Amino acid sequence: MSITPQTGRVAVIGLGSMGAGMAGSLLRAGFSVTACDVDPEAVARFEAAGGRGVATPAQAANGVDVVVCVVVNAAQTEAVLFGPEGAAAAMPPGAVFVSSATMDPAIARRLAARLEETGRHYLDAPMSGGAARAAEGELTFLASGTKAAFDAARPALEAMAGKLYELGDAAGQGAAFKMINQLLAGVHIAAASEAMSFAAKQGLDLHKVYEVITASAGNSWMFENRMPHVLEGDYSPKSAVDIFVKDLGIVQDMARAEKYPVPVAAAALQMFLMASGSGMGRDDDASVARLYAQVAGAVLPSPKD
Amino acid sequence: MSITPQTGRVAVIGLGSMGAGMAGSLLRAGFSVTACDVDPEAVARFEAAGGRGVATPAQAANGVDVVVCVVVNAAQTEAVLFGPEGAAAAMPPGAVFVSSATMDPAIARRLAARLEETGRHYLDAPMSGGAARAAEGELTFLASGTKAAFDAARPALEAMAGKLYELGDAAGQGAAFKMINQLLAGVHIAAASEAMSFAAKQGLDLHKVYEVITASAGNSWMFENRMPHVLEGDYSPKSAVDIFVKDLGIVQDMARAEKYPVPVAAAALQMFLMASGSGMGRDDDASVARLYAQVAGAVLPSPKD
Repeated sequence: MSITPQTGRVAVIGLGSMGAGMAGSLLRAGFSVTACDVDPEAVARFEAAGGRGVATPAQAANGVDVVVCVVVNAAQTEAVLFGPEGAAAAMPPGAVFVSSATMDPAIARRLAARLEETGRHYLDAPMSGGAARAAEGELTFLASGTKAAFDAARPALEAMAGKLYELGDAAGQGAAFKMINQLLAGVHIAAASEAMSFAAKQGLDLHKVYEVITASAGNSWMFENRMPHVLEGDYSPKSAVDIFVKDLGIVQDMARAEKYPVPVAAAALQMFLMASGSGMGRDDDASVARLYAQVAGAVLPSPKD
Repeated sequence: MSITPQTGRVAVIGLGSMGAGMAGSLLRAGFSVTACDVDPEAVARFEAAGGRGVATPAQAANGVDVVVCVVVNAAQTEAVLFGPEGAAAAMPPGAVFVSSATMDPAIARRLAARLEETGRHYLDAPMSGGAARAAEGELTFLASGTKAAFDAARPALEAMAGKLYELGDAAGQGAAFKMINQLLAGVHIAAASEAMSFAAKQGLDLHKVYEVITASAGNSWMFENRMPHVLEGDYSPKSAVDIFVKDLGIVQDMARAEKYPVPVAAAALQMFLMASGSGMGRDDDASVARLYAQVAGAVLPSPKD
């Protein structure tokens, strides 16, 4: 029998902008939520919202039905599960680990196999949607895993998700769908940046470029979402350059392992690397447009232009 | 005083799928329309629709108010204007030449200057929208030119256009906006193809990939429009690979001339070149996905799969 918010106990590992919102959604739904984070202030905010803060993944996972892991990458996910004070050994048999970090599908399969050997379940559930949708419980999950993993995780997912895609019966498939999305998203940011600064180099009215392109066949979700940052000269990070250094890096690793050429994604990655290497790694990913402009002597809008 | 459909005389040079639709829109609006094409059957269809077919651009342009040039590229446009039996010398003083081919802005400026010296006007007016929208009089024009050129061309444009962007007071700006759109459109087709065949290589359900991506941040107008061709295994040309061989080639020429790097568009162009070189030049541009699949041993849907 599956848990309900009234009886269910959930752990959230990682209280960054995404994890904090997800923990809040779980609390509002009525779950009993424990959580940990390396930042004591994040834990204090979580406690003020009605959660129980603890020091380690093991303490958080002790006795819960669902562990939601909201960390940055595969290495952190592995440490949360199997590192010192890791969650895996503390999870009750039959509990489910919901992994939300973007990672190589091969690693997701490996982590799942290692956890499943011990009688716990693993749901491969990368997500999309930013901090605002996390806080609203309106994230999209690209999930795959066994029926037992879905059954165990579903009540908690329903509290956090606006949309749950069920993409296969084994870990790795959710991760693979996420990587296809990240390949496209990263290329589209780089292309938007290449095009926008090229328009600036030619002296075109960039607001007019935005108007024309968003109504034309050259449009993309990323062009429409990111290029306003360029028009406003605002590179404060909504999503950082280094996220795509990481994610397009994973695409390269996967593609090389499968002997699959990805020349377009490879070119885009080089631009994110140039931006990061130039000191913009923690700035907004639309900073790739600034890099093109710097290299080629194009003039982009300054803040409040 | 500007012409009206009742008094106006328009020439259409080129009666391909776009030009035939545009000529039809002009006829329906009440204009007197002359036209020529190298294909006698296209001219015969035009005459059956109520137009007057002639043999050369010079004959078509003789005595008209507006010449609409609907050919493939800059070289053909130059020949239509200034070649043997060209339109320029036959146009009455004060008439306007509306150039719709996608071309390097520098060439548009050069053609305009040469025509304007003779007392005729030039409107740089590349368009977007396919044959269906041409036939409905619902094309989008990305136009620039002098006020006199716009004034002279406007009644004819209104018969052909759903949307008219007025993008500047000199030839070249319309062409530049079009090239920014083509850079993005070409990259997005290549990226969609790279991603879709990569998904196939990993054994993902491609219909599910389409569903997830079109609802996610990785979406683009081109992904949404072109990938159904891959899902259906239908590579009959809606828009051919060689169109982007041409247009991304122009992007490279422009960028090199301006010392502006376009690594992402350059990678995309190589994929269109590989597809064209492999014999798919006249097939649908979603054939780039077939090329990736062939190279990497991925299996895409066959027709009626």
